[in-house]
Amino acid sequence: MTQEKIWTAALVVIGDEILSGRTQDKNVAQIAAWLNVQGIRLAEVRVVADDQEAIIEAVNILRARNDYLFTTGGIGPTHDDITVDAIAAALGVGVVHHPDAVAILTRYYETRGGVTEARLRMARVPDGADLIPNKMSGAPGIRLGNIFVMAGVPHITAGMLDALTGTLQGGKPVVSITLGAWVAESEVSDLLRSTEKAHDGCAIGSYPFFREGRVGANFVTRSTDADAAQACSTAIATGLAALGYESTPGGI
Amino acid sequence: MTQEKIWTAALVVIGDEILSGRTQDKNVAQIAAWLNVQGIRLAEVRVVADDQEAIIEAVNILRARNDYLFTTGGIGPTHDDITVDAIAAALGVGVVHHPDAVAILTRYYETRGGVTEARLRMARVPDGADLIPNKMSGAPGIRLGNIFVMAGVPHITAGMLDALTGTLQGGKPVVSITLGAWVAESEVSDLLRSTEKAHDGCAIGSYPFFREGRVGANFVTRSTDADAAQACSTAIATGLAALGYESTPGGI
Repeated sequence: MTQEKIWTAALVVIGDEILSGRTQDKNVAQIAAWLNVQGIRLAEVRVVADDQEAIIEAVNILRARNDYLFTTGGIGPTHDDITVDAIAAALGVGVVHHPDAVAILTRYYETRGGVTEARLRMARVPDGADLIPNKMSGAPGIRLGNIFVMAGVPHITAGMLDALTGTLQGGKPVVSITLGAWVAESEVSDLLRSTEKAHDGCAIGSYPFFREGRVGANFVTRSTDADAAQACSTAIATGLAALGYESTPGGI
Repeated sequence: MTQEKIWTAALVVIGDEILSGRTQDKNVAQIAAWLNVQGIRLAEVRVVADDQEAIIEAVNILRARNDYLFTTGGIGPTHDDITVDAIAAALGVGVVHHPDAVAILTRYYETRGGVTEARLRMARVPDGADLIPNKMSGAPGIRLGNIFVMAGVPHITAGMLDALTGTLQGGKPVVSITLGAWVAESEVSDLLRSTEKAHDGCAIGSYPFFREGRVGANFVTRSTDADAAQACSTAIATGLAALGYESTPGGI
């Protein structure tokens, strides 16, 4: 097997509301799943406070060692929305009002009370940035180099991801095949270990659960090689059967 | 106001299943909320892959700059459970079977098929560690220095947190007071900014939403000084009323 480049992304989730436990993050899972389809692996995530130094540190380390860096949160019109300024500071560029964003917001607020200085805060971008369209609420996302600045509200970020679909270079998407079984994972740990070892380029994850009064687990095989993933998952099923356990394709 | 020490914690979420988007993390919110009650602020979170180098990097940086470090995930019996080895490597200590954990697991599995070598993997700890009781599934959590190693399955981690309640030194808990209003946050950004500035030691977060066809926002005042938080939140309500907006205590 030739070694193919693995494209990676990192995500910085910006927001006191996540760190205080007030808000349940949904952007990690949503962005991870979207990246998989683009053939890009989410390699690491950091959740940082609404604090300029914390954002700068995370952005500068992660953009350097990943192909792409996404951020979520902190791009609204209020005083706690400091993402744009922090990213501009991280890149050492100024902040400007993007003319297209000004036009979009002016049009959007025409029938919604008119554009104001506060609302025009959402047109501010690091100098040199492009916009990511947002059909949901007017305020656009921001793209600059390998950095993608998205909203904190999950359905708005979903719209921005939609606008980006197919535009980012990636590798082969990761194929995941899930098998479920009513078995304690500790019963089959040797099987999983040896099966993973025997199938190059495949990773097996074991995810236990406790339901209907019984223990079980889902075994997820991941690989960029669909045939290899299928062979590995079949080997798990065969091994489970040999130990007397039925398995359910797709998971339990 | 005298400057009080702010106690902080960091969390490292360990797991390919979070980074692949397969599993929705629930431990960040749960641990954050629990820490608040202990008077400890969750300062930063990292989600890393099941990869020893990634875990070591995150653990060593975060344990050094926070009072406490929590990890979740990767302490089960299978090949992808590498948290104990990674933390031992981060600390430069060996891995041993903790005799109490061996006893707990032996007793737990007595009526569940008997203890096996695979199951005894869950008794492995970095040398010098203490156990955190786990009533849910036998396998204990681990405490070593300022590091707390918890399960990935949220209800098991909940049990471990319960066992730790009241045992960690912290400061004053953060008080949060929420006000909701049917107003676009961009209408009141000046009010929020000036109110926060006028109330020392208070932080105001603005969290917009779109519901029932209307926009609104919740304004959350946070402070370790309950009186200050109340005064600040009251000032927001007064300011909203002056602009013609009713507000709802507790949020919308």
